[in-house]
Amino acid sequence: MSIITLTTDFGTKDHFVGAIKGTIYNELPNARIVDISHEISPFNITETAYILKNAYKSFPEGSIHIIGVDSELNEENKHIALKLDNHYFICPNNGVISLLANEIKPEKIVEINIHDRIETSFPVLDVFVKVACHIARGGKLEIIGKVISEYKKMVELQPKISDDLITLTGNIIYIDNYGNAISNISKKVFEEVRKARNFEIMASKYHFTEIQNKYSDIVDFSLPFDQRQKEGNKLAIFNSANYLEIAIFRSNLKTVGGASTLLGLNYRDTITIKFS
Amino acid sequence: MSIITLTTDFGTKDHFVGAIKGTIYNELPNARIVDISHEISPFNITETAYILKNAYKSFPEGSIHIIGVDSELNEENKHIALKLDNHYFICPNNGVISLLANEIKPEKIVEINIHDRIETSFPVLDVFVKVACHIARGGKLEIIGKVISEYKKMVELQPKISDDLITLTGNIIYIDNYGNAISNISKKVFEEVRKARNFEIMASKYHFTEIQNKYSDIVDFSLPFDQRQKEGNKLAIFNSANYLEIAIFRSNLKTVGGASTLLGLNYRDTITIKFS
Amino acid sequence: MSIITLTTDFGTKDHFVGAIKGTIYNELPNARIVDISHEISPFNITETAYILKNAYKSFPEGSIHIIGVDSELNEENKHIALKLDNHYFICPNNGVISLLANEIKPEKIVEINIHDRIETSFPVLDVFVKVACHIARGGKLEIIGKVISEYKKMVELQPKISDDLITLTGNIIYIDNYGNAISNISKKVFEEVRKARNFEIMASKYHFTEIQNKYSDIVDFSLPFDQRQKEGNKLAIFNSANYLEIAIFRSNLKTVGGASTLLGLNYRDTITIKFS
Repeated sequence: MSIITLTTDFGTKDHFVGAIKGTIYNELPNARIVDISHEISPFNITETAYILKNAYKSFPEGSIHIIGVDSELNEENKHIALKLDNHYFICPNNGVISLLANEIKPEKIVEINIHDRIETSFPVLDVFVKVACHIARGGKLEIIGKVISEYKKMVELQPKISDDLITLTGNIIYIDNYGNAISNISKKVFEEVRKARNFEIMASKYHFTEIQNKYSDIVDFSLPFDQRQKEGNKLAIFNSANYLEIAIFRSNLKTVGGASTLLGLNYRDTITIKFS
Repeated sequence: MSIITLTTDFGTKDHFVGAIKGTIYNELPNARIVDISHEISPFNITETAYILKNAYKSFPEGSIHIIGVDSELNEENKHIALKLDNHYFICPNNGVISLLANEIKPEKIVEINIHDRIETSFPVLDVFVKVACHIARGGKLEIIGKVISEYKKMVELQPKISDDLITLTGNIIYIDNYGNAISNISKKVFEEVRKARNFEIMASKYHFTEIQNKYSDIVDFSLPFDQRQKEGNKLAIFNSANYLEIAIFRSNLKTVGGASTLLGLNYRDTITIKFS
Repeated sequence: MSIITLTTDFGTKDHFVGAIKGTIYNELPNARIVDISHEISPFNITETAYILKNAYKSFPEGSIHIIGVDSELNEENKHIALKLDNHYFICPNNGVISLLANEIKPEKIVEINIHDRIETSFPVLDVFVKVACHIARGGKLEIIGKVISEYKKMVELQPKISDDLITLTGNIIYIDNYGNAISNISKKVFEEVRKARNFEIMASKYHFTEIQNKYSDIVDFSLPFDQRQKEGNKLAIFNSANYLEIAIFRSNLKTVGGASTLLGLNYRDTITIKFS
């Protein structure tokens, strides 16, 4: 039985997520339902794209991913379903899929057209779940939509390379649970532009000339405990999703603080890398 | 195998919810356990009633709903189990069931009387789970309690109609994840009282003479993008649960704000509708 | 099929927990995965130990518990797997297991040594999940690690008894969802030291000479409603985990407050009991 995952901005207090799961179990008693996240900032497409990209590929092929962020149907926000990398995605056509589809070409995209049969003010429950169950039962995408070739792109998700290849400019696209500020600069893009040159990373007023692979790489374990790098030190790191991240060692937003609070790095702020 | 749902004010940090699920799996290895909400404001019966009413009916018939809010047993707070609308509910007799039972008469109610066999300071784990597993195995309610005919009513959940039928007065009973302020005035009650008259809704110092069916109904898509209704505009809407809600278009409590913060609408505040 | 539980400080917004579940389902399609908590304060070993101790024993024997708090591998923080009380635990060797292992001797402990085969910046996903799936398939601990006899101890988790047996001194080790301040003084230790003497509990500037067994034990139900103990009264109680807790009756951190906010009791504060 297929896995159905949920990625929404519904929060976990309201009845929305429970109602969706109940509806899925009504149609598919043996479904395996997995919450990816319900804590996305309301209507934040960039956050959704980042979370989805880093979560989906851990799931088995054939998994069905419902994305309920900014999904109210209107003439400028249609619903789509697509197959990409042998996974299925059901989402609004608002750009949320472009971080994925930019790297891996969708095999098929349909614009969902079952709405004429459905009166709804809760499309994730009434439309997306129905489409997910259809796919889980082996149904074809063409049955629930018409094939389209284009999806809406989000440009802000891509870092920019200067014409002289000296500067790579990205943005903070995500602040994680530890307050770490994650950019849209992937290790792959960084290395392609770098070509073994030296580099300097500028984030707010802070500079970094090294990128760690583990947080504790900044600790010199040969030193006595009280002379070491401690909680509160800043670092640049390629995180487990392979994006450049500005972090605070052993951060805690409720006590010592994190990169977002201590360094003043916020969603959409610029990260600049100069190569020399 | 029956579904067991959990609706509590336990939060998701503490060990309580994990312990409950472990105990259920100990008794019923194939149980399907679904979290409806654990983020209910501590001891808030009204919130619980609203969430439960809007979540339960999405689940298959025969589902068993455990409600762990204000459930410490004492001489004025007994435990009950009931069958209603072909669902089972296990809860304290503190009024939490009255929003449901007001509309659909319970088929059977029992006051749970297995406590003499159970020493407990955690009744949801020790009593409610035991009752849920008993029901899931096909056991009768009479085995774990004595049949009663009445349950505790909560009057505050019902809106009031003036004698001259000109005014309908309700209250905010729930603030949702987006800061939307939801009243206890259902579309059904509204239309019954309205009888096709004009209306004016007053919430705090704000007036509304239209009720939308979708949030984006306030957007005129024929206008250029920069002349449209934008994030931050207020509206009245019948939400997906069919209750009258005062909302902010594309609200976000952490950035632009929501109806609760921008309009100063709080739990228990009055919503008045005048018909003419 | 074994149950795999997750106890982490990852939060539920980021993609980490979803990715872990997807990876488990990839290896074990029929796994039952249970979230114990993902809301642990970042890097807080004491909180983790308290939650884990109170949750694990509700699960069936043979359950596998993944603990992802402060788990980055480095030369002073190795990974271990152990069998204890017929449950399996996979965790960093940072003391998190000592609240459990202090009471029940582990049957076997191994230091995980499969890292040479795994390049990772996300060890819970890449190492702990692999070990959990190995155990779930009936694999032996010796296959994924080398047997060790000692684990790292955490002394702060144990209360201290004065030489004259007059004073028992503990600490707040956990603030729960209601703001209740929970100490490391168990009912068992309290009674062993007390030996039927009188006692006085001091927490901050507050004194208690009674310990309740239920929160509503402070209410005299024979009084009229408006003359009773109400929301906001403080009490000492042995909580459902049998630890001494300083609580506020019907507390709510967002409205009336809780013991942590109203009495100024914080993580690591001292609780002193004098016997006479």
